[in-house]
Amino acid sequence: MKRSVFFISDSTGITVEALGRSVLSQFDGVTFAEQTLAFVDTPQKAADTVRQIQAASEHDGARPLIFYTFADEILADVIRQSGALTMDCLEIFVRPIEEELGITALHSAGRAHSMRDRDYQRRIDALNFAMGFDDGARLQGLHNADIVLIGVSRSGKTPTSLYLALHFGVFAANYPLVDEDLADDAIPTTLAPYKNKLYGLTIEPTRLTQIREQRRPGSQYAKSEKCEREVRAALRLYKANGIPYLDTTNRSVEELSSKILKESALLRQAGG
Amino acid sequence: MKRSVFFISDSTGITVEALGRSVLSQFDGVTFAEQTLAFVDTPQKAADTVRQIQAASEHDGARPLIFYTFADEILADVIRQSGALTMDCLEIFVRPIEEELGITALHSAGRAHSMRDRDYQRRIDALNFAMGFDDGARLQGLHNADIVLIGVSRSGKTPTSLYLALHFGVFAANYPLVDEDLADDAIPTTLAPYKNKLYGLTIEPTRLTQIREQRRPGSQYAKSEKCEREVRAALRLYKANGIPYLDTTNRSVEELSSKILKESALLRQAGG
Repeated sequence: MKRSVFFISDSTGITVEALGRSVLSQFDGVTFAEQTLAFVDTPQKAADTVRQIQAASEHDGARPLIFYTFADEILADVIRQSGALTMDCLEIFVRPIEEELGITALHSAGRAHSMRDRDYQRRIDALNFAMGFDDGARLQGLHNADIVLIGVSRSGKTPTSLYLALHFGVFAANYPLVDEDLADDAIPTTLAPYKNKLYGLTIEPTRLTQIREQRRPGSQYAKSEKCEREVRAALRLYKANGIPYLDTTNRSVEELSSKILKESALLRQAGG
Repeated sequence: MKRSVFFISDSTGITVEALGRSVLSQFDGVTFAEQTLAFVDTPQKAADTVRQIQAASEHDGARPLIFYTFADEILADVIRQSGALTMDCLEIFVRPIEEELGITALHSAGRAHSMRDRDYQRRIDALNFAMGFDDGARLQGLHNADIVLIGVSRSGKTPTSLYLALHFGVFAANYPLVDEDLADDAIPTTLAPYKNKLYGLTIEPTRLTQIREQRRPGSQYAKSEKCEREVRAALRLYKANGIPYLDTTNRSVEELSSKILKESALLRQAGG
């Protein structure tokens, strides 16, 4: 079974796309041909969009699924008359809240994901911080970190730090545990002052071998004995010092970041 | 007016949080005290959550707003009986699609934002690429880029590249235009082979001065004449060579990324 899906918005479309994809992930055995149409903010663009929807409908022989959000009800009406299955993603929640609070919503486009987001500047600052403190690049200024991810090379520190920064506004540094750090079970002296900010990442050695092998085929660095030894030593270090840790093998950066936030009780300032 | 808001999920909570924040951005004059409760995946945790909701309700003297999503209807029921204004964020869309397609949804938790996302590996690969090709760090391998952002120092290239990679799976490199590049209106020779991948960023000189002044107070680099001269020269270069460009001054990385995708017709593979 195949269905065309459109995510349509008068703004970035990021919210409606994320929501729509979450909903669709609940359906197996259907091939969804997805398209995002962002910045549909004039009657002309809405009319063009309807033509695209109707062309897909004729081509598929089945009506497309539409996830949409418009501040302007006139544009929303144009989409609703497309003959597709249309699902309004914001208004459906705005209405009950208007009733609950006894006030009228702004009904203005692009409020989310704009620079008017309260936490926008913090997220950008956090991203610059994470870039500057990636892979142990710097130690001076580390006291400004909210969290310091540690782990062996290629255990997932960089993507997790960047996601924590860009999405959640967390000042996340990361530091690679290399052979010298793993010689005993002690926290590296440079990191000792930040012990309470440390968060360990671990990974299954076989997966680590795969990743390193892809990066440097045939290298000593990718050898399975070396990967196993490093991972085991890192785990010992975490346990000996009461450092919380997570296994990254089967977790996405989104799952890792959410879990780390939950477990470290850092403030969650979602935006992106 | 103040209201407590809870974003509750049996998984990362990222979708429900993004949606809820979009909805709330439509209301001015209300202070929302927001909390995300992720990985609420047992009856015990659901019961604890209800206690938190009820404590907030008593404290505020008004019922909280709840955006929630659960795969397990038993957990959802627990939340619905909290006395708060509860809004189910996925089921409300899953139902009409079940009817439309004539099939039953999986009703399983954490399908979104997991490694099972079709595009997950591509997004991580894109992020590694963007990190490796940040700030003109490398030129070899640039033919693998989907897009090469160019612009003067601090015009927004790095955050935009990283967002394009992490959220949309776009292989985005970026290259800083320095004095030598701006001496005439020609594309830097190292970039000439990738002309069709170039995308320019521009910024208001007064804003650029602020940003650079924050970074290096009192420096030559931050002087307003220098900023103005650089921005003007970069714009001339874009126009002389037909390079598409965007002004980053009043746009968030989300808005920039969405616009760039739309205008460059790159495939949008949203995930994060």
